[in-house]
Amino acid sequence: MGLVGIRVIVFDVYGTLFDVHSVFQKCDELFPGHGREISSRWREKQLEYSFIRQMIGSYRPFDEMTRDSLRYTCEQLGVNLSAEKERELLLAYLSLSPYEEVAQVLEQLARNSYKLAVLSNGSPSMLYPLIEHTGYNRLLDDVISVDDVKQYKPSPQAYTYGLDRLRCRREEVLFLSSNTWDITGASTSGFRTVWVNRKHGVFDHLGVQPDASISDLRELSGVIKT
Amino acid sequence: MGLVGIRVIVFDVYGTLFDVHSVFQKCDELFPGHGREISSRWREKQLEYSFIRQMIGSYRPFDEMTRDSLRYTCEQLGVNLSAEKERELLLAYLSLSPYEEVAQVLEQLARNSYKLAVLSNGSPSMLYPLIEHTGYNRLLDDVISVDDVKQYKPSPQAYTYGLDRLRCRREEVLFLSSNTWDITGASTSGFRTVWVNRKHGVFDHLGVQPDASISDLRELSGVIKT
Repeated sequence: MGLVGIRVIVFDVYGTLFDVHSVFQKCDELFPGHGREISSRWREKQLEYSFIRQMIGSYRPFDEMTRDSLRYTCEQLGVNLSAEKERELLLAYLSLSPYEEVAQVLEQLARNSYKLAVLSNGSPSMLYPLIEHTGYNRLLDDVISVDDVKQYKPSPQAYTYGLDRLRCRREEVLFLSSNTWDITGASTSGFRTVWVNRKHGVFDHLGVQPDASISDLRELSGVIKT
Repeated sequence: MGLVGIRVIVFDVYGTLFDVHSVFQKCDELFPGHGREISSRWREKQLEYSFIRQMIGSYRPFDEMTRDSLRYTCEQLGVNLSAEKERELLLAYLSLSPYEEVAQVLEQLARNSYKLAVLSNGSPSMLYPLIEHTGYNRLLDDVISVDDVKQYKPSPQAYTYGLDRLRCRREEVLFLSSNTWDITGASTSGFRTVWVNRKHGVFDHLGVQPDASISDLRELSGVIKT
C-alpha cells in the first residue's frame, strides 16, 4: 500500500515547514508572561481574517492581515503595542524556525528527483525571506504565493493556481499540510493529500479525509510508493 | 445624529438574540466540569466549519455541521459522546435562552411599525423551533434561513438573499449582529449595521466598521432616528 505515481510534492508553509509559534519567544520577550497567549491568539485571528476576507471577496495581502490581526489581538488583550514592538514582531515572522527534520527530508526528496514546491497564503514579502534564510530555495522548484491570484486557500482557485504554475497533472501531485482546513481544501480540489499531524490531533468532520497521515515529514518515505 | 430612513430591522440569531452558551448548562450536566470548555470549543468549531464549507463550496445544513462540530470537539477533548448525549445536546440548541431584553425590544419595534426579520445561518429545522418556543414568530415579519440559497454568511450572496426576501431597498435596512464577522459581511454588502457588543469586545481590523455599536438591544432606540 502507498501513494503511487507521485512526481510533484507541494508543501504548505506556516505550521507545516515552519513553526509559527516560534514567534512565541519574541512575544514573551516583549510582553513577559503573555507570549503564549498573544502568539496563539494572533495566529487564530490571522487565519480567521484570511477566511473572512476570502468569503467577503475583499482580499488583502497576508503581511497586512498579519499586522492587523496582531493589532486586534493586543487591543483585545489590553496590552500596548508600540510601533517598535509591532515592527519587531512582524520581523520575527520573516525568520520563523523550520521544524527540525525539514531540511534533511527536502534534500532527500530532491535527490530522488521529485519536483518540490511550496504553496502558501503568505505574500511574497513574507515568504521569500523565510525560504531564503533557510536555504530552501536551493531545493524547491517553485515558491508559489496565492497573492498572484488573490484567492486564499482553502478556496479551490488557490489550489488550481498552484497546479497551473507547476504545469503537471493533478494526479501527479501530493499536497502536504499540518492545517486540517488546508488538507480539506486540497482534497476537495482533487489533490492527493498527506496530513502532517504534528500535534497528534484529530481530523475535522467535514466529509473529507487525507489519503494518509504522518507525525512528521520523516514518515513521508513510508507513504509514497516509488 | 442617528441612522435615518430605517424601515426594516434584520437580526442575526445565534449570539445576537439567543445566547449560544446557554447550552453550557446541558454540557456541564452531561460532562461535569467540562461544560464551559466543550460549549465554547463547540461554538468555535461550528463557526469554523461554516467558514470552511463556504470557502470550498461544499454547503451542508447548519444542523448537520452543529452535530459534526460537537463530535469533533468531544473527540478532540477525549470525552465519550454517546448517541444519547449527542441527542440531548443538539436538542438544547432548539431551546436556547434569548437574552433578557429581546422580547420587550422586539415588541416595541413592532408597535412602532418597523418590519422585523431574522437572517440566520441556521437551518429551518433549528431556527423555527427557536423562534416558536419564544413566541417571536408573532413579532417577526420573516424568518430567513440561508439554507434556501445554500450560501453561508458572511458571503455577499447570503445578505443579498435576505434583501430579496424582504422586498425592500438596501438603504431601508438596518442589520444587527453580535458577531463581528457578520457585521463585516453585512457592511461589505452595503447594509447599514449596528454591532451588538454584548461582551465589550473590540471590533475587527478588517477595514470596515459598524455604523453604530450598542451594549444590548435596549440601546437601539438611541441609534435610530425616526
